[in-house]
Amino acid sequence: MPEEARSAPRRKLWGWGRDGEGLGPAEIEDLRRLLAARFGLAELALAAPPDLGEIDLRPPRVPVPTALAGILGADPAERAAHTHGKSFTDLARGLRRDYASAPDLVARPRDEAEVAAVLDWCAAAAVVAVPYGGGSSVVGGVEPRIGHGHAAAVSIDMGALDRVIEVDPVSRSALIQAGVLGPALEDQLRPHGLTLRHYPQSFEHSSLGGWIATRAGGHYATLHTRIDDAVQGLRAVTPRGVMETRRLPGDGAGPQPERLLLGSEGTLGVITEAWMRLQARPQFRASTSVRFSSWTDAVAAARALAQSGLHPSNCRLLDHREALVSGSGDGSAAILILTFESADHPLDAWMGRALEIVREHRGEPDEARRTDRRERDAGREDAAAAWRRTFLRGGHLRDALVRLGLVTETFETAVTWDRFDALHAAVVGATEAAVAEVCGLGLVTCRLAFVYPDGPAPYYTVIAAGRPGAEVEQWRAIKAVASDAIIAGGGTITHHHAVGRDHRPWYDRQRPPLFADALRAAKRALDPAWIMNPGVLIDPD
Amino acid sequence: MPEEARSAPRRKLWGWGRDGEGLGPAEIEDLRRLLAARFGLAELALAAPPDLGEIDLRPPRVPVPTALAGILGADPAERAAHTHGKSFTDLARGLRRDYASAPDLVARPRDEAEVAAVLDWCAAAAVVAVPYGGGSSVVGGVEPRIGHGHAAAVSIDMGALDRVIEVDPVSRSALIQAGVLGPALEDQLRPHGLTLRHYPQSFEHSSLGGWIATRAGGHYATLHTRIDDAVQGLRAVTPRGVMETRRLPGDGAGPQPERLLLGSEGTLGVITEAWMRLQARPQFRASTSVRFSSWTDAVAAARALAQSGLHPSNCRLLDHREALVSGSGDGSAAILILTFESADHPLDAWMGRALEIVREHRGEPDEARRTDRRERDAGREDAAAAWRRTFLRGGHLRDALVRLGLVTETFETAVTWDRFDALHAAVVGATEAAVAEVCGLGLVTCRLAFVYPDGPAPYYTVIAAGRPGAEVEQWRAIKAVASDAIIAGGGTITHHHAVGRDHRPWYDRQRPPLFADALRAAKRALDPAWIMNPGVLIDPD
Repeated sequence: MPEEARSAPRRKLWGWGRDGEGLGPAEIEDLRRLLAARFGLAELALAAPPDLGEIDLRPPRVPVPTALAGILGADPAERAAHTHGKSFTDLARGLRRDYASAPDLVARPRDEAEVAAVLDWCAAAAVVAVPYGGGSSVVGGVEPRIGHGHAAAVSIDMGALDRVIEVDPVSRSALIQAGVLGPALEDQLRPHGLTLRHYPQSFEHSSLGGWIATRAGGHYATLHTRIDDAVQGLRAVTPRGVMETRRLPGDGAGPQPERLLLGSEGTLGVITEAWMRLQARPQFRASTSVRFSSWTDAVAAARALAQSGLHPSNCRLLDHREALVSGSGDGSAAILILTFESADHPLDAWMGRALEIVREHRGEPDEARRTDRRERDAGREDAAAAWRRTFLRGGHLRDALVRLGLVTETFETAVTWDRFDALHAAVVGATEAAVAEVCGLGLVTCRLAFVYPDGPAPYYTVIAAGRPGAEVEQWRAIKAVASDAIIAGGGTITHHHAVGRDHRPWYDRQRPPLFADALRAAKRALDPAWIMNPGVLIDPD
Repeated sequence: MPEEARSAPRRKLWGWGRDGEGLGPAEIEDLRRLLAARFGLAELALAAPPDLGEIDLRPPRVPVPTALAGILGADPAERAAHTHGKSFTDLARGLRRDYASAPDLVARPRDEAEVAAVLDWCAAAAVVAVPYGGGSSVVGGVEPRIGHGHAAAVSIDMGALDRVIEVDPVSRSALIQAGVLGPALEDQLRPHGLTLRHYPQSFEHSSLGGWIATRAGGHYATLHTRIDDAVQGLRAVTPRGVMETRRLPGDGAGPQPERLLLGSEGTLGVITEAWMRLQARPQFRASTSVRFSSWTDAVAAARALAQSGLHPSNCRLLDHREALVSGSGDGSAAILILTFESADHPLDAWMGRALEIVREHRGEPDEARRTDRRERDAGREDAAAAWRRTFLRGGHLRDALVRLGLVTETFETAVTWDRFDALHAAVVGATEAAVAEVCGLGLVTCRLAFVYPDGPAPYYTVIAAGRPGAEVEQWRAIKAVASDAIIAGGGTITHHHAVGRDHRPWYDRQRPPLFADALRAAKRALDPAWIMNPGVLIDPD
């Protein structure tokens, strides 16, 4: 483990980030006043995050095997910290001191051989194995649950496999261990002038292996959106041994083997390292924001940009409410954030044509927009830091909202453009109706997080008044209504949050039954004892 | 079947194209003189393609089932035409009148229900089913072979499923039947102003379903190279029933189901239709050719272009010999063909920066190059027609070479840039040595067909003197040496030609053993009787 990681504050037992981070008392008081004004909720009690001493952990159902004493442990703090991900229900259950699904043991393998040793023992002892990267799952993907005759569960924390092993500057690629978190990964690439440029909102507390296992969506609003396209080759330990694919820039030999592990969500094995395609660090950047009075115009502009072949790196469209809530607008307009970046060339022509397109759709570019210019390292770092602060604040803000008793959820999908208007109306309508019925007060906002030539990936945020003690049930009712509307509207139950357990009922409806049979058979071939993250993605029969 | 297809000349029984196409006697005589001059081969006998009457077909091992008499038939012309693909060994065996692996029956289903009926009968009767699109496989992918206790073999010709069913202009997508060949597909899209822009060399005689089943490489030298990225959703009939995936612009729900069928090469089922991502027809085009005295400089320039983020639609690099043989150069330089195209914007900035890059690498752009300009439909059609003529001539030229007794082969791979120089030297060295040993005289040329940011896909052409009667064995010896060098050099045994049977020994070395186990299990789940194209990709144990 690098020195800096050892000396940094620990990740919080509950909530986003590390000890010491988050909203202070004055900020929470401001938030409380804001919510009182918006929702008319005068008396919001602030729940306290759990202390370890308040958590009643079931004793481990298996002892630590002697031969693995250096890798596996039953430390209560470790077990509690590996119980939940970061979904609303995870946070709400944490506030209730509900840690019923804590792993019996936590493994911290230091290399691939130790991962294999843990899986060998798990398979022999009928112990569930749950790969754990940064613990940022919002779909129940890292929560250890047993079943099917399992004796216990181990959470395998991959945090010690955090190195960039080899950099190939000619092919702009690197061999990287799967446990590395976003910042440590970029720190190791920076001296080479290279970057993965994969910045999911969870960037600081999610791992390369987690991104691959969940098919994460990252930095690019167009073109290189998904981590899938950055995987050049990978290596995983399954209960039956190591699977390693050949690193290749392109390949047409049979079904692509990487694609079996991309999206496998820990059900087939533990991804240990991957050859990743990198980018040269951007030297040119052109950015602006564009105001649209009409949502319809704004969506048409986003579609035209997505279909233009200009490939903006950022093309995020916030609806009127999202612009207001996020502080990007005053609520009278939708806001499109538009950015081009390049390591190779000035972007005047790109931004010039993009501005023509938005104006054709009655968009008004911000006059104070930044135009094509060469970035200095310092300037770029500032922009990245500002972005990071905003994103981080998102996680901390949500923690505060949950502590104040609100029900929050973010959900997302993707759908073809021809179906988007109907899906969007149905999702917003059904979700607002559910919020009104279940919570009374609340709001639903939307942004288009990613845009493809053939359709957008809308991202919805729900904030609603909770009823003390019933928040999880309220969340579940709203989630079901929203998910039903997505599936009925032709969308996917998840564009980049993954399936985990929360999305299973809808994934099971979306996934072709014969593909389920094929996936089940493939899993049986790699994980005969069905120990890898059971309950996620697929069941034995 | 559309009227025009019914009235068009039949596809040839032997060789490329339709009856009446191909090199005429005077052209063949010119070619013979050229070969005599280059190889010192004065007496090249011209073998005649087989007539149907000369082919001794084994009687069908099963009768046509009465219930399927309208779909299945045992017509000798049909059986002979569905025996081989278009590989060198296919052509050479055809000239020997070797049609030993002819299918017992040929099916021509008119809809998905008829495909299902054929598979049902095949599974019940232990009859092998081989999906057949345009028959252009160069790897033995459509040759019916039985084994594992099979009684007979059926070739399923998908040619009647040739319609564009639905066009979605908003999402720029279309639902297309899998049996449609390239020209008929583009003809149906043209009135909508849309195009798939997937032009493999086999364009005229390969099908959408074949492209998907073999993960074909198409028009784009960068970015949208592979058909995989154009598949929005698909539908296939497996022996266990229909599998249909949801059409989506992007999706993060588990392993992507389409990816199981992409590259499945007919071993899992018959692809019947797909929702495909389309492009608006290009309105702007900028093209030039660039001369490099040094191959090293040329490769460095191609890499810089691939990594520039400019995304040229064409970025093909011909080595000195390939430039000479193809008529693009005089043999004193490597030639880079560089094209940008757009439906949205002029390309001055794109081509301008690309020319800076090639000049930085001592490339000399052709002064007579076409610059950014708006294309008229007529002009674009001319360019496409010229391209098509060149490509078609390739197939006809090869037919003539084979008839003249030469051994020919094209093989291809992809490898990361850091390994390219060593792989290229080893492949050319080993192949030239094999040609010298096995054939005496011959040459090996190379072009970079596609370039990725992390590596090129080199394409090699071998033309060598054959020994009458031993051509197939000579080919096999050269093929083995070249394939060994590719695998040893870190490449893939195929970037876009697929695995079929010819590449099996090397695919089996390249493919992770545990992935083979998973694929085998998935196939068992979809094809329990193991009737789908056995011998291709994977064996039962």
